[in-house]
Amino acid sequence: MSNMKNILIYGARGALGSACVSHFKKQNWWVLAVDLAENPEANANVLIKSQTLIDQENEVLSGIESSLGSKKLHALVCVAGGWAGGNASSKDFIKNTDLMLKQSLWTSCLAARVASKYLNDGGILVLTGAQPALDATPGMIGYGLAKSAVHHLTKSLAAPKSGLPESSTVLTILPVTLDTPMNRKFMPNADHSTWTPLDFVATTLHSWSEQSSDQRPKSGSLVSLFTKGGETKLETNQ
Amino acid sequence: MSNMKNILIYGARGALGSACVSHFKKQNWWVLAVDLAENPEANANVLIKSQTLIDQENEVLSGIESSLGSKKLHALVCVAGGWAGGNASSKDFIKNTDLMLKQSLWTSCLAARVASKYLNDGGILVLTGAQPALDATPGMIGYGLAKSAVHHLTKSLAAPKSGLPESSTVLTILPVTLDTPMNRKFMPNADHSTWTPLDFVATTLHSWSEQSSDQRPKSGSLVSLFTKGGETKLETNQ
Repeated sequence: MSNMKNILIYGARGALGSACVSHFKKQNWWVLAVDLAENPEANANVLIKSQTLIDQENEVLSGIESSLGSKKLHALVCVAGGWAGGNASSKDFIKNTDLMLKQSLWTSCLAARVASKYLNDGGILVLTGAQPALDATPGMIGYGLAKSAVHHLTKSLAAPKSGLPESSTVLTILPVTLDTPMNRKFMPNADHSTWTPLDFVATTLHSWSEQSSDQRPKSGSLVSLFTKGGETKLETNQ
Repeated sequence: MSNMKNILIYGARGALGSACVSHFKKQNWWVLAVDLAENPEANANVLIKSQTLIDQENEVLSGIESSLGSKKLHALVCVAGGWAGGNASSKDFIKNTDLMLKQSLWTSCLAARVASKYLNDGGILVLTGAQPALDATPGMIGYGLAKSAVHHLTKSLAAPKSGLPESSTVLTILPVTLDTPMNRKFMPNADHSTWTPLDFVATTLHSWSEQSSDQRPKSGSLVSLFTKGGETKLETNQ
C-alpha cells in the first residue's frame, strides 16, 4: 500500500461499487471496501452488521482505523443505494422510505463522517444522488426525499467550516438510470442505450480522483449523467 | 365531535404543538394529539412509544383508527421537530443527524401517510421545514438535510398522484427562529423581536385550516416566516 494511492469505496459490493473496485484496482489503486458483504477483489474490507445509524458509525470508524491506522485517503466514493417506489397512499410508503434513508442517506452521512477524519487535504469525496430528485417525485416519495437530502448534504459539505479537510472536493453524481443487471432484469424492454454504463461512472470517478482540486468540477457540484445512444455527458448543475 | 371541525396535531406536546392545541381548542375545533407524551388539553391522544419508523407507523395508524374510526380530518399539522448542530468533524454529527431525521423527517413522513388515509377532500396538511435549510448548513448538517428532505416531501405531496386526497393542500412553514422557552433559555441575549411568536404560527395554521383550497397559498408552497420588530410576514417561495 505504501506507494499506492488509496480509495475507500462505500457500497463496494453493489453493481456500481463492484465496477469501481475493479476499475481502481486496474489503475493500481489500493482499495478499501465497505459494505454489508465482502468484496473479495478489494485489498481490505470493513463489514457493516449493525442495524442503527449510531452503531454503524462505531463499526465503520473502528473498522477503518484497524485497516488504515494513521494513513489518510486520496479518495472516498459512496455508491451505496437502491430504489423503491411508492406514493403516500402506498402500504409500502413508510417501509420503503425507511429503506431509502438507510441505503442512500445513512451511507452518505457516514461517508462524510469518515471523510472528515481520513480524507487527505486535496482529496475527493463523491456521493450518489439522483437526477429525478431535483424535482418532485410523487411516485417514489421516499427515494426522492432521501436523494434530495444527499444533495443538501453535498452543499453543506462544500461550504466553509463543514469539517472536511482543506482544499478537498465534494461532488455528487446524479444518474438517471444506471445500466445494472438488476435494472436489466426489471426493465427488460426499456431503451438501454439511454442507461449509463457502470464503466463510464467508474472511469469518471477515477479521473476526478487523479485530478487536483482545480481540475475537478467545483466542490459542491451536483453532476448529472445524461446518456443518449450509448454516449454519456456530464452536466454540472448550478 | 360530531359538528366540530377536527385537526390532528403531530408533535402536540412541544412548545409550538401546545400553542396550536390551545389555539384550535379556543376556536372550537376537536383536537387529536400525537406525541411521545400526552397533551391533556387535547380531546384525544395517540402516544408514540416505538423506536423504529415502521413500528411507529403501525402505532400511529392503529391509534388514530381507534380514535377517529371512519371519520376524516379537516386538517393535519406536523410541528414535531428539534434542533441540533454539528459539522462533519463533530463527534456528535451522526448522533445528531439521527435525532434530526427522527424528530423532523420521520414525523413528517408519518403525517403524510396519515393524511393519505384520513385527510378530507379539500383538507390541509402543514409540515414544518426551516428557512436556513434552503441553503447549505455546514454548521448544522444533520438539521439542514433533514429539513431539506421535508421540503422535498412537500413538493412530492403537492404533485399529481402523490396519494393525498383530491383538492387537498399541502404547505410547509419555514421558520427562522421560533420564540420558544427553550430558545429563550439557550439564546438569552439574542434579539427576540426577530423571533416568530408561537401564537402567530398557531393563528396562521388556523386561518389556512378554515380557508378553502383556492384561498390558501398554492399547494406545495414553502412559506417563510420573517419576523422583524415583533411583526411577522409570510413569504411564499417559488
